[in-house]
Amino acid sequence: MSILIVGSLAFDDIETPFGRSDNTLGGSSTYIALSSSYFTDKIQMVGVVGSDFGNEHFELLHSRNIDTKGIQVIDEGKTFRWAGRYHYDMNTRDTLDTQLNVFADFDPVVPEQYRDAEFVCLGNIDPELQLKVLDQINKPKLVILDTMNFWIEGKPEELKKTLERVDIFIINDSEARLFSGDPNLVKSARIIRQMGPKTLIIKKGEHGALLFTETGIFSAPAYPLESIYDPTGAGDTFAGGFIGHLSRCETITDTELRRAVLYGSAMASFCVEKFGTDKIAALNLLEIEDRYHSFRELSRIDE
Amino acid sequence: MSILIVGSLAFDDIETPFGRSDNTLGGSSTYIALSSSYFTDKIQMVGVVGSDFGNEHFELLHSRNIDTKGIQVIDEGKTFRWAGRYHYDMNTRDTLDTQLNVFADFDPVVPEQYRDAEFVCLGNIDPELQLKVLDQINKPKLVILDTMNFWIEGKPEELKKTLERVDIFIINDSEARLFSGDPNLVKSARIIRQMGPKTLIIKKGEHGALLFTETGIFSAPAYPLESIYDPTGAGDTFAGGFIGHLSRCETITDTELRRAVLYGSAMASFCVEKFGTDKIAALNLLEIEDRYHSFRELSRIDE
Repeated sequence: MSILIVGSLAFDDIETPFGRSDNTLGGSSTYIALSSSYFTDKIQMVGVVGSDFGNEHFELLHSRNIDTKGIQVIDEGKTFRWAGRYHYDMNTRDTLDTQLNVFADFDPVVPEQYRDAEFVCLGNIDPELQLKVLDQINKPKLVILDTMNFWIEGKPEELKKTLERVDIFIINDSEARLFSGDPNLVKSARIIRQMGPKTLIIKKGEHGALLFTETGIFSAPAYPLESIYDPTGAGDTFAGGFIGHLSRCETITDTELRRAVLYGSAMASFCVEKFGTDKIAALNLLEIEDRYHSFRELSRIDE
Repeated sequence: MSILIVGSLAFDDIETPFGRSDNTLGGSSTYIALSSSYFTDKIQMVGVVGSDFGNEHFELLHSRNIDTKGIQVIDEGKTFRWAGRYHYDMNTRDTLDTQLNVFADFDPVVPEQYRDAEFVCLGNIDPELQLKVLDQINKPKLVILDTMNFWIEGKPEELKKTLERVDIFIINDSEARLFSGDPNLVKSARIIRQMGPKTLIIKKGEHGALLFTETGIFSAPAYPLESIYDPTGAGDTFAGGFIGHLSRCETITDTELRRAVLYGSAMASFCVEKFGTDKIAALNLLEIEDRYHSFRELSRIDE
């Protein structure tokens, strides 16, 4: 089934204790699209870049069968840029620089041929833009939304309005506490699910993720990696693996949602092993299945 | 099989955002013994108390079939006291007061009839005392040791010497990083397991626990509780459930170790629901099995 992905495309300057990488292809929709491209070949991107977004970047996306016709290229404009530095524990980062550039005036236009998309993944952008995208889709089967503390604090009412039309909401633990006003994640989940999304995923970074559905809670472990080189994009890569797996399911059952969380986790665990998109742009299906099964083994108890 | 438990017995003054409880029965061995008492009726305690340790406390332990002949009562002495305050997030606490009292001169003597103990659980006390206890046991089948940052920082060499004779070491994540000198838990585990204990459990509080064995890693989820009233003793209660389950296994396989981690987690999840030992002194086997199965469901994916 087709997945429509909206979000940022960017160039990142990343510093971690293990090195640095400048002018690295990044952005929420880039990570989501690359990650989900291992699960389906019908991926459509909506976004905006400047004329500095070179052919090599489009070619990389095309090499993964990603349809980029929905990416507007602004002549003489510059692509969104972000610079950040991670600390030794990799859980905290400082944003050193943000240049919105062409993203400042982004007005998402969903091409005619994308409007029947069955799966819609709204990456982390202004909730008003996320809603604008939804208004252009005919009848999506499933809408997934990711956001961040910047929008929770800056546009909570707009975010709530958009969430009314969302099926699955992905958020991290500190954002869930901030948005709900409750430090307890179980209570937070109840409060947030009442805003619309029946299914909620709370990501806990190195501690895995919690999936809240109508039937209960699923706790997915994080893969205990020996080396984490760069956490940039891990959350988006999770979302890509998650929606990617769901897009190939005939029916979305609780079991498939649980599996999708593990596929998302597996993809995210690859993402952090190299800088930027280096790792997730060059995976093969066998290693993805291997990693998925390693995740399964992590919490399996034979009866 | 019999479990010999050594550790502190104490009176605690506990403050949490939900209330306070003074002169509450506590101490590492108290929590371990009560928790493991649901799994076997051959529990022997070695410890020390003052004359303020009343009959009602001994009766509580006896009501759970715990043998207290190894608890020395020091006439006119006072029992170890601890006072602490938990903060809103329940992950950090301040120690307000510590009075070692009779514990200052504790010289553990293992009664003759305890020396054939098959399972030995060395609760968090001075590693030199833990070693002294081991020297008095004939041929234990399994030795489990718990410790804390106080001993890791204060007596690292003594702790390492004791660990050479330990099968299973239980520690929390910050202690593992401190002890190994490595922030990565996978690397920490490798360093610590080289000190002696083939099996290592790293507790991560509200994020569950990791079990490292010769065959791999198991990740146990934490039960997402809506209300945590008092985290005091949760780690000791975990150890009690863990060794309790193992003590009833004919052979200790990797699967039984994984189950034991879930039983430990289940017991710990009860512990925090009330102040002090109130909850774990009054459980029944059915609710323990129910909670164990809830833990299983949390990470289960049907095939």
